[in-house]
Amino acid sequence: MIKTNPTQICPLPITDYEQIMLAHGGGGKLTQRMIEQLFFPAFNNEYLGQEHDGAVIPVREGRLAVTTDSFVVNPIIFPGGNIGDLAINGTVNDLACCGAVPMYLTASFILEEGFSMADLKRIVDTMSIAARKAGVKIVTGDTKVVEKGKGDGIYINTSGIGIVPDGIDISPMNAVPGDVVIVSGLIGQHGITVLSTRDSLGFETEIKSDTAPLNGMISDLLAAVPEVHVLRDPTRGGVSATLNEIARKAQVTIEIDEALLPVGKQVSAACDLLGLDPLCVANEGIVLVFVPESQSEKAIEVLRNNIWGRNAAVVGRVSAKGHGTVTLKTLYGGCRIVDVISGEQLPRIC
Amino acid sequence: MIKTNPTQICPLPITDYEQIMLAHGGGGKLTQRMIEQLFFPAFNNEYLGQEHDGAVIPVREGRLAVTTDSFVVNPIIFPGGNIGDLAINGTVNDLACCGAVPMYLTASFILEEGFSMADLKRIVDTMSIAARKAGVKIVTGDTKVVEKGKGDGIYINTSGIGIVPDGIDISPMNAVPGDVVIVSGLIGQHGITVLSTRDSLGFETEIKSDTAPLNGMISDLLAAVPEVHVLRDPTRGGVSATLNEIARKAQVTIEIDEALLPVGKQVSAACDLLGLDPLCVANEGIVLVFVPESQSEKAIEVLRNNIWGRNAAVVGRVSAKGHGTVTLKTLYGGCRIVDVISGEQLPRIC
Repeated sequence: MIKTNPTQICPLPITDYEQIMLAHGGGGKLTQRMIEQLFFPAFNNEYLGQEHDGAVIPVREGRLAVTTDSFVVNPIIFPGGNIGDLAINGTVNDLACCGAVPMYLTASFILEEGFSMADLKRIVDTMSIAARKAGVKIVTGDTKVVEKGKGDGIYINTSGIGIVPDGIDISPMNAVPGDVVIVSGLIGQHGITVLSTRDSLGFETEIKSDTAPLNGMISDLLAAVPEVHVLRDPTRGGVSATLNEIARKAQVTIEIDEALLPVGKQVSAACDLLGLDPLCVANEGIVLVFVPESQSEKAIEVLRNNIWGRNAAVVGRVSAKGHGTVTLKTLYGGCRIVDVISGEQLPRIC
Repeated sequence: MIKTNPTQICPLPITDYEQIMLAHGGGGKLTQRMIEQLFFPAFNNEYLGQEHDGAVIPVREGRLAVTTDSFVVNPIIFPGGNIGDLAINGTVNDLACCGAVPMYLTASFILEEGFSMADLKRIVDTMSIAARKAGVKIVTGDTKVVEKGKGDGIYINTSGIGIVPDGIDISPMNAVPGDVVIVSGLIGQHGITVLSTRDSLGFETEIKSDTAPLNGMISDLLAAVPEVHVLRDPTRGGVSATLNEIARKAQVTIEIDEALLPVGKQVSAACDLLGLDPLCVANEGIVLVFVPESQSEKAIEVLRNNIWGRNAAVVGRVSAKGHGTVTLKTLYGGCRIVDVISGEQLPRIC
């Protein structure tokens, strides 16, 4: 598939370079060779092969979902994944939460001079596998290199396009009194995993990030329960920030019951130890689902049939029109406002 | 348009923060406030207002062009533009060079802790104006903040979607013997401008970057000359890298005539002084056009009618099928191979 030309391509394979150099981002031979020897073989598909400055893809009349995310997670490799599958899954899940079937992704890299070529290859391979698992194609990309000290190894932007099937209408504005709130899995896994790997903390757990492509599960859910009102993956800021955003946009009050929240033992222990609220810890492989109460049983059943949804649980409900408040019924029977934190408990979580 | 809620939005306006803090990227109140007070008012449109994790846009049956680019230019503000219009125009031009009408852009920011809020506002405002000029909408976005020393002020990714009109087929593979090669404007302006602003060099010129949205001009061209075979903006690596890429992909020989190359006096002088080849210097506001010779006069006429194309000129032709070689007939009557440089004369040019 890859044409080479002895007058233009140097003979040294890209893997002979142990580190990224500024020249890999210069648009010359080294950039071209990295594209041909590293990115093309990993992401190979008919659209990428067009070798335009972009990709030309066919579409039918309808609605597209479009999303973008830059990933700056630190560390870049963590239990359960790395920045590569995080970047694919994150964008796939954002599209799925618009009610769309994710189709095409772009991948853009900002590499720091001196970054390990072996790590780049590992990350690119992970992206390739993650894209295949999610059923999406990486159709075009870009690579820039910045001087040592002007980046942190690797930052990845993935933007995505998905097709919204007819009859699907998902929006945070759609939350109405009478909806129940479902969480599709254990909360806080990703945030606590990343936290546990930061050098300065030095506590150990066996928790893994929950990074996962949720489009298959969401597609099953929408097929069985097309009445779903809201879908949202509670990443940065955790369940608390996401529920507050929905409450505010739909101008409703959301009531959550602490006793119903699915929290793993290790996340619970780590949160106790560190004084964190699991509601504010980032997730990567769960989704919040708002459905009319009459559909909640069916929704839970569909979610639990999926590997990523086996811990799905109803955790609360939309109680009334209001000013956008989220309340928590505590384990001790009290009730408190669930506020959004000002910043983030942990920077660079995704 | 923007709903505010006293329980969730702090009273301090975003402009009271002189610098970006890590918390602006945390997904909490400060992130939300920056989105609502800075990005939404600047980029305001009906799709952005959906406030999903993505945007849902309508499409007709046909072909879409998709592209992505991360911008890491240094310095971020330079004569003729800043990283903001560069990011909009660069992605608009990549779409136009696929033969598409640019429609929707995404914007994703990686900000360094401590970055000036005033500079961010200036850049965002520039993006807003550039998007309006190019007739595109910024439909969704993302913001991340990294610690001081892990970035360089601001990096921007823009990804874009455009519609390819029926009957248009632009591709580097389409270059055939008999095509003439047109350059739409003076070469080397952007690269020399950025170079002249780097601290260490300290030479002064009055050159401005040529950053510009070329979609209007290209659209006029395609309407008048639908037989256009190849369109490509010669950014990183300059005219030389771009022609070599086209020659290699189409497996043709391209002959360029040095006497016909449109080079401004100041770029010419700077290149002489610094020992640079203007063919290898980056451009942001010109396009290379390959058309059958019979159409070249009409193409030049249409290009020259446009403000960005007033210096358009035929500079060479595709001479034969071949192994992907670019040759230059020099001013002194000789002939040399135009090779691709290994890296880049200047890192972080865009």
